[in-house]
Amino acid sequence: MSDRANALALAEVRLTPVLVADPPLLNTQGVHQPYTPRLIIEVVTEGGVTGLGETYGDAGYLELAKPLAASLIGRPVTDLNGLPALAAEVCGDVAAAAGPDAVDVGGLRGVRTADKLRLSVLSGFEVACLDAWGKAVGLPVHALLGGKVRDAVEYSAYLFHRWAAHPGGRGERDDWGAALDPAGVVAQARRFADTYGFTSFKLKGGVFEPAREVATIRALAEAFPGRPLRLDPNGAWSVPTALAVAEELGDVLEYLEDPVSGTARMAEVAAALGGTGPGGARLPLATNMCVTTFDEIAEAFTRDAVQIVLSDHHYWGGLRATRELAAVCAAFGVGVAMHSNTHLGISLAAMTQVAATLPGLRYACDSHYPWQTEDVLTERLTFHDGRVAVGDAPGLGVELDRDRLAVLHRRWLADDGTLRDRDDVAAMRHADPGWTAPAVPRW
Amino acid sequence: MSDRANALALAEVRLTPVLVADPPLLNTQGVHQPYTPRLIIEVVTEGGVTGLGETYGDAGYLELAKPLAASLIGRPVTDLNGLPALAAEVCGDVAAAAGPDAVDVGGLRGVRTADKLRLSVLSGFEVACLDAWGKAVGLPVHALLGGKVRDAVEYSAYLFHRWAAHPGGRGERDDWGAALDPAGVVAQARRFADTYGFTSFKLKGGVFEPAREVATIRALAEAFPGRPLRLDPNGAWSVPTALAVAEELGDVLEYLEDPVSGTARMAEVAAALGGTGPGGARLPLATNMCVTTFDEIAEAFTRDAVQIVLSDHHYWGGLRATRELAAVCAAFGVGVAMHSNTHLGISLAAMTQVAATLPGLRYACDSHYPWQTEDVLTERLTFHDGRVAVGDAPGLGVELDRDRLAVLHRRWLADDGTLRDRDDVAAMRHADPGWTAPAVPRW
Repeated sequence: MSDRANALALAEVRLTPVLVADPPLLNTQGVHQPYTPRLIIEVVTEGGVTGLGETYGDAGYLELAKPLAASLIGRPVTDLNGLPALAAEVCGDVAAAAGPDAVDVGGLRGVRTADKLRLSVLSGFEVACLDAWGKAVGLPVHALLGGKVRDAVEYSAYLFHRWAAHPGGRGERDDWGAALDPAGVVAQARRFADTYGFTSFKLKGGVFEPAREVATIRALAEAFPGRPLRLDPNGAWSVPTALAVAEELGDVLEYLEDPVSGTARMAEVAAALGGTGPGGARLPLATNMCVTTFDEIAEAFTRDAVQIVLSDHHYWGGLRATRELAAVCAAFGVGVAMHSNTHLGISLAAMTQVAATLPGLRYACDSHYPWQTEDVLTERLTFHDGRVAVGDAPGLGVELDRDRLAVLHRRWLADDGTLRDRDDVAAMRHADPGWTAPAVPRW
Repeated sequence: MSDRANALALAEVRLTPVLVADPPLLNTQGVHQPYTPRLIIEVVTEGGVTGLGETYGDAGYLELAKPLAASLIGRPVTDLNGLPALAAEVCGDVAAAAGPDAVDVGGLRGVRTADKLRLSVLSGFEVACLDAWGKAVGLPVHALLGGKVRDAVEYSAYLFHRWAAHPGGRGERDDWGAALDPAGVVAQARRFADTYGFTSFKLKGGVFEPAREVATIRALAEAFPGRPLRLDPNGAWSVPTALAVAEELGDVLEYLEDPVSGTARMAEVAAALGGTGPGGARLPLATNMCVTTFDEIAEAFTRDAVQIVLSDHHYWGGLRATRELAAVCAAFGVGVAMHSNTHLGISLAAMTQVAATLPGLRYACDSHYPWQTEDVLTERLTFHDGRVAVGDAPGLGVELDRDRLAVLHRRWLADDGTLRDRDDVAAMRHADPGWTAPAVPRW
């Protein structure tokens, strides 16, 4: 190795769990906690360059991150292809001990496996390594991924049914107010459009009975004629319900996201919606639940169960894995876009960098970021015309605010443990003490 | 862009077509020409770093390379994701003018399309850009691809039926002698094993009637018991013939390569060979003919037509595309290895760099390189124990010998045009004036 390569070896890795304010957003499992755990990863090279990464912060992830962090010392930040094997080696016992139920994230990530847990953890390290590498050589992360093919990445407004405040006065306050009916959601969408310029809209569904959510989408279609709309009930519906909704909303939806749970049911819905082909106008099904790992692709694609995969670089194992997923999708004529849930600016920067490199990206990506009023960056990322600009600053182009990081970490330290694992079901019990995770299909 | 990024912009691109000595190796189309055209690509950055690439040198490729070379000036060497669109833009008319028949390479590349031609050309530029980038930042190409997962890449001995010399005394002489029967091929294999340490053996078949080639594989199996053997008739057989050969050689072949032409016939053979599964010992089918582009993958994988794809980074559009292909293969449980035909050390270095980064590579790669006694490098790559070491020198780790390049270029300049397009059928007419491309299936 040259001197320059030696300078890219990792000298230190810092893990800082934080709790981040999250509004009372509703989904089919329950409600977001007032604070969500995230893990901030800093890797420091021998050359003194620090790279930033971010991933889930729940206890199961944190336990895996520790041995992986230790094992990275001395390895160059460029040594990324070996990360999965390394993680399997050093995290294997921890994952086995944690058990499959340790992978939760609000019950919204599809089937739970130790593999997914490990990939989500190493994705944070991969991003941090790319950031450090880019900073060390003066290149943006997108260049390390082969270069951007667009100068800005489009995001959609992520609409939620929500309360005005968390039950019992927990958590932080905001001024968005409640959105529990069509008018409330349209008002929310209007504010998103006015503030950020979003022109695509995704509604998190599965909260109320389907007819009510259909009415909300209809109201959005009237308020924003011709705009791309999506509805995502997180697999809460039966096949007949999904088909009935598709029938009612097929003329205004860009795609229907995870209407049902599991590849078999998605395939059933897709088949019933009819074949594509010249002039074929089948409503596409998107997923970030039944195809979340490479192992789940073959069955889903062979059965034509999904037409769009919503990638999440945390799930898939990083930015390079996201590019590989896009390549698989392209080979099979499956669309690709991006999933998002509660995350900070490091992850939004990472999403933007990789999204900028994907020639086949044809849909606005999801972004939960506008709901996160707190961040660990010196300067928050901004949306203009619904887009985040793809800069050419070295690395991810973001800078850590150590004071903010310390504040959010102290919140994590102060927590008695009840919020350190995201649990939307438990959070719902603060409003409805008898609440349990709904059986699927719910409707 | 930072100053360092600016230094990575391309200031100059040089294209040098050469003619390289090739022995009288036989295949189902005919015989290799005494000299084969290759194109050597040099890209020079604003920072003064030169990167090397290599691809097919036939006229159709050269005509595409010229406008692509011109369009690269000013672009950073990291700007690789945009190359396919750029090539489509600047090469479109040339490709259309050249027509589909312009993509030949001995008739051994499967279906001919303008897309393939373009990808083969841009692959040479991609490799040159990666070499320059690596040299500029002091990193090996494998690091730019995410890092090696092995320190040496295994290659197989590439056995050919061959004559002692080209007809009519054309071309260069070598001391390998003829290999036209089992004993001759076994002797060739022995020399390969003794000289280079190869322990896997691939026989280019489709030259003689199948029974004769079966006997040759049997002889190899006796001479090298337990060693992986492959047989590749380049699609020359009918389905019944392929099945008969598979039946006869199933116990000694590691895989059977392109026994028949086209995905439909490959699928028929694969289905007849039986399903895989726990304890399933189906003889796998490999291809570098029916799956040579991303567009050909879905049908082949969905129909289970091939179990191993032999990647060729020239076909697929470069080293990063090769990694994407490997990701697609991994997702579908399809094996990946590497194809090779007449090429020089730049391409062998490129193959080795990318092969080193593929965790899923489980087969020895093909290498035609030992048949090429000429090269354009100051130092040839070497095989030890059948392997090429994966160094950490910046870029590809090879250096251009300008004197040798000039010699081989002068040979190209001096040619009257008859050798500037590889044509194994025409070459065969020097021995058999009535020879025409055999109809498929030949047997």
